[in-house]
Amino acid sequence: MTRERLYLFDTTLRDGQQTQGVQFSTEDKHRIAELLDGLGVDYIEGGWPGANPTDSAFFEAKPNISKATFTAFGMTKRTGRSAENDDVLAGVLNADTPAVCLVGKTHDYHVTTALGCTLEENRENIAASIAHLVAQGREALFDAEHFFDGYKANPEYALDCLRAAYDAGARWVVLCDTNGGTLPREIAQITRAVIDSGIEGARLGIHTHNDTGMAVAGSLAAVEAGARQIQGTLNGLGERCGNADLVSIIPSLLLKEPFASSFETGVTKAGLKSLTRASRMLDDILNRVPQRNAPYVGASAFAHKAGLHASAILKNPDTYEHVDPAVVGNSRIIPMSNQAGQSNLRRRLAEAGIAVEKGDPALARILEIIKEREAAGYAYDTAQASFELVARGELGLLPQFFEVKRYKVTVERRKNKYNKMISLSEAVVVVKVRGEKMLSVSESLDETGSDRGPVNALSKALSKDLGPYQAYIDDLRLVDFKVRITDGGTEAVTRVVIDSEDAQGRRWSTVGVSPNIVDASFEALLDAIQWKLIRDGAQA
Amino acid sequence: MTRERLYLFDTTLRDGQQTQGVQFSTEDKHRIAELLDGLGVDYIEGGWPGANPTDSAFFEAKPNISKATFTAFGMTKRTGRSAENDDVLAGVLNADTPAVCLVGKTHDYHVTTALGCTLEENRENIAASIAHLVAQGREALFDAEHFFDGYKANPEYALDCLRAAYDAGARWVVLCDTNGGTLPREIAQITRAVIDSGIEGARLGIHTHNDTGMAVAGSLAAVEAGARQIQGTLNGLGERCGNADLVSIIPSLLLKEPFASSFETGVTKAGLKSLTRASRMLDDILNRVPQRNAPYVGASAFAHKAGLHASAILKNPDTYEHVDPAVVGNSRIIPMSNQAGQSNLRRRLAEAGIAVEKGDPALARILEIIKEREAAGYAYDTAQASFELVARGELGLLPQFFEVKRYKVTVERRKNKYNKMISLSEAVVVVKVRGEKMLSVSESLDETGSDRGPVNALSKALSKDLGPYQAYIDDLRLVDFKVRITDGGTEAVTRVVIDSEDAQGRRWSTVGVSPNIVDASFEALLDAIQWKLIRDGAQA
Repeated sequence: MTRERLYLFDTTLRDGQQTQGVQFSTEDKHRIAELLDGLGVDYIEGGWPGANPTDSAFFEAKPNISKATFTAFGMTKRTGRSAENDDVLAGVLNADTPAVCLVGKTHDYHVTTALGCTLEENRENIAASIAHLVAQGREALFDAEHFFDGYKANPEYALDCLRAAYDAGARWVVLCDTNGGTLPREIAQITRAVIDSGIEGARLGIHTHNDTGMAVAGSLAAVEAGARQIQGTLNGLGERCGNADLVSIIPSLLLKEPFASSFETGVTKAGLKSLTRASRMLDDILNRVPQRNAPYVGASAFAHKAGLHASAILKNPDTYEHVDPAVVGNSRIIPMSNQAGQSNLRRRLAEAGIAVEKGDPALARILEIIKEREAAGYAYDTAQASFELVARGELGLLPQFFEVKRYKVTVERRKNKYNKMISLSEAVVVVKVRGEKMLSVSESLDETGSDRGPVNALSKALSKDLGPYQAYIDDLRLVDFKVRITDGGTEAVTRVVIDSEDAQGRRWSTVGVSPNIVDASFEALLDAIQWKLIRDGAQA
Repeated sequence: MTRERLYLFDTTLRDGQQTQGVQFSTEDKHRIAELLDGLGVDYIEGGWPGANPTDSAFFEAKPNISKATFTAFGMTKRTGRSAENDDVLAGVLNADTPAVCLVGKTHDYHVTTALGCTLEENRENIAASIAHLVAQGREALFDAEHFFDGYKANPEYALDCLRAAYDAGARWVVLCDTNGGTLPREIAQITRAVIDSGIEGARLGIHTHNDTGMAVAGSLAAVEAGARQIQGTLNGLGERCGNADLVSIIPSLLLKEPFASSFETGVTKAGLKSLTRASRMLDDILNRVPQRNAPYVGASAFAHKAGLHASAILKNPDTYEHVDPAVVGNSRIIPMSNQAGQSNLRRRLAEAGIAVEKGDPALARILEIIKEREAAGYAYDTAQASFELVARGELGLLPQFFEVKRYKVTVERRKNKYNKMISLSEAVVVVKVRGEKMLSVSESLDETGSDRGPVNALSKALSKDLGPYQAYIDDLRLVDFKVRITDGGTEAVTRVVIDSEDAQGRRWSTVGVSPNIVDASFEALLDAIQWKLIRDGAQA
């Protein structure tokens, strides 16, 4: 059976640029373009050449794209000049891309208030601009701004504008729900009406925004109604609530019916395996924290916390997974918490290299301890390394490498000799290692002389001299530190979660709980060190 | 025209608890239940009484709910015992809630593999459990787990199970897309098939998950097909990619057609105005960063970054907004530097009792300072009291009541005379008030002799002796304390937000930022005291 071709048009580099807090550099744009090309999208819209220095520089350098059609964005020519003489349009054409997408108005109200020209002039501007692109040998696309609202206000005029672009030779006319307020059912109805008016579905695109949380559904509804191009962005970047998220749309197109057997896209099943990586890479380039609960690619997307679910998953993943995480390059997580059962616990321990027989009474005890500790404020679903230590303790597999006899931390804020307020922390830690007492002291200043606070001083003092174990922890680095006040049963306590990293790139999380924040941090630090000593095979 | 009643069933406290990284305390649950009740949802599912200590404690204490129907969750009775003799079911009933929702299996495969009973036994378990609830005078709900997948595998059996609950007197039978993989169109088709089989739409609910990014669309599709109850969570909390987000669903139901003229829900137009606040409060309780791009309520949901859009918006907001942000309690954001930013600032200052003339150059300076400080890690969204102090500083309206000359805090952990590890913090603060130097010292022990940590000691020392101002702050109480590591421009910094309260029940939030957590806390504490002195009219 031949499947129909569906085209994916990515506008991360153009509409995605409108995201609050996002500002691409030219270098970012190059990396993202390569990422998109590797994923397999059909069109990459790079920005608006001439609109700002970053975009101009990006188009000048030309990204390294092998497969996708590189596209420049601009707007239809203005009234009172020819397409040939419109300098803004010329700037777009000068970028010399194989495809050009021009936005134009199709909502009568916007034409008269924002453009201040007549309806007929606007229609002519669209036709002339698209004809000019075609005459220059470019693939022409027309983004019909506010199309759905325009169609509801004046269907005849909205369709006239669309047809102007279509008849002038646009390869694609794209229905844009610019304000994002149109619901999927209405998108489908209007898309069908457009096709019924004589515009071929094979030349019709859809561009939605997520203002009602339904951009993905709206895009798919348009495809079901006959549209054959979807415009969207990676991770749903875009103004306000973002554009349609291609990262959610692509797997549904490739894996779900009626789409999977009807269509093929530039992204293949093989390309789909790189989806999770592409999504995280984009966040990495933008220095954003990936959204844990993102459909298909989020770190939590295949995390099974409920005990009943987790045990069923172990028997058969189908029971609580709608697709296999591997097909989108993601993986399953069964977090350890008091909701998880014994079989889940055994599997978790096996992953940490600890084999426990089925039915071992220690399993029930471990679950009981975890439950008690979670009631006291601990949280093990992220702090897996601390969880492992608790289990080892109960199984008699926890070597005692050293003992902390005492510590003392001082935090001081006062004026220095230049009469400027400064702060400084100092920590003293006393540890007993193989019968020997070691005293270490550290202060909180970093290489630049800035104070990093008491936890930093304590961490440095603790890892300064651990005698025979020192070599194991020299590369240990504290990379993140999260604190929250939580319920510890009868009173509020502080929970600290620490993420550590070592030279091998391993990353692990530990947790400490106490009403005293320094103490909670200290507990998490100790766990971090102990876990590393065990993993690296240190002998007690 | 009478509108049909549509019911909103919130499961934030039950299914939302499955979110990775979320662990509600009993106190959290009470606050969230009140939040939901204030918003106007029809049902509040509180958790599973008997399943864990937090849920049991929550049901024992009974939340302060005035309007919503409080609901306990559990599962249908097990095979081989009567409903009356099932201890798990008894635990649920003992919570004594007006409504009880029981989950049961309707997918033949799950019955035989996970429950290990016969299909007929499972059907009987459902019927007997629901009948037992009804006999006890409870409103009974039945969550049909895996209904959509079950219907596709064996429609007859899935419908039989549903009908067993329905005929036994369930007020609601709820179609659950447990794995989240069913697309909206299929949800609509199957919902219609259920109604065609003789189940009344007025007793039919929908429960979706966001694994394809379409939980909201799926819920609305079910309503269009005839279902009259929607289950979901605030901010889309929930396992994996989350449940259907009621915060997105509610405004579409109230503001968009065909829903707005067809239905009414427990949430009224007036309640809708508190939606943004409710969404942010939940994140605040969970110490999560609110999602900027959340539909309707996100901080970016009405942010207009594109230059063309921003200027059109100033002429007529309709041009680029699908709804008025005020109807959901949100507000428009247009880049700080322009007029709209200033009028917004003037409005906020007026709320704090500070009148500033339109066009006063101080307004632009305040916006600039806030911008700089937010780039350095401060966050004023919640810390309104600190924001007010910054503005007062720039307007010359900030009295200097006292000056902190220096402080010193010691945190010590060591063995006591009984050879038990104990910790203790001590703080010394030196303050100059009206030319007089005051030295105060406090330790971190509370009434019960437990160590409360360095911030507690510091807070007590600071508020121990402020000379003439002491009377103003005697009733000041630190009620919450949140810490987050954030980006401070070139390096990571710690942001501390402190919530304070006084005897009048006033509650205010202040913020401090420093790489040193004690220092950041101290800054927030100082702001808290200063704000109270100003509010209470203390004279410098």
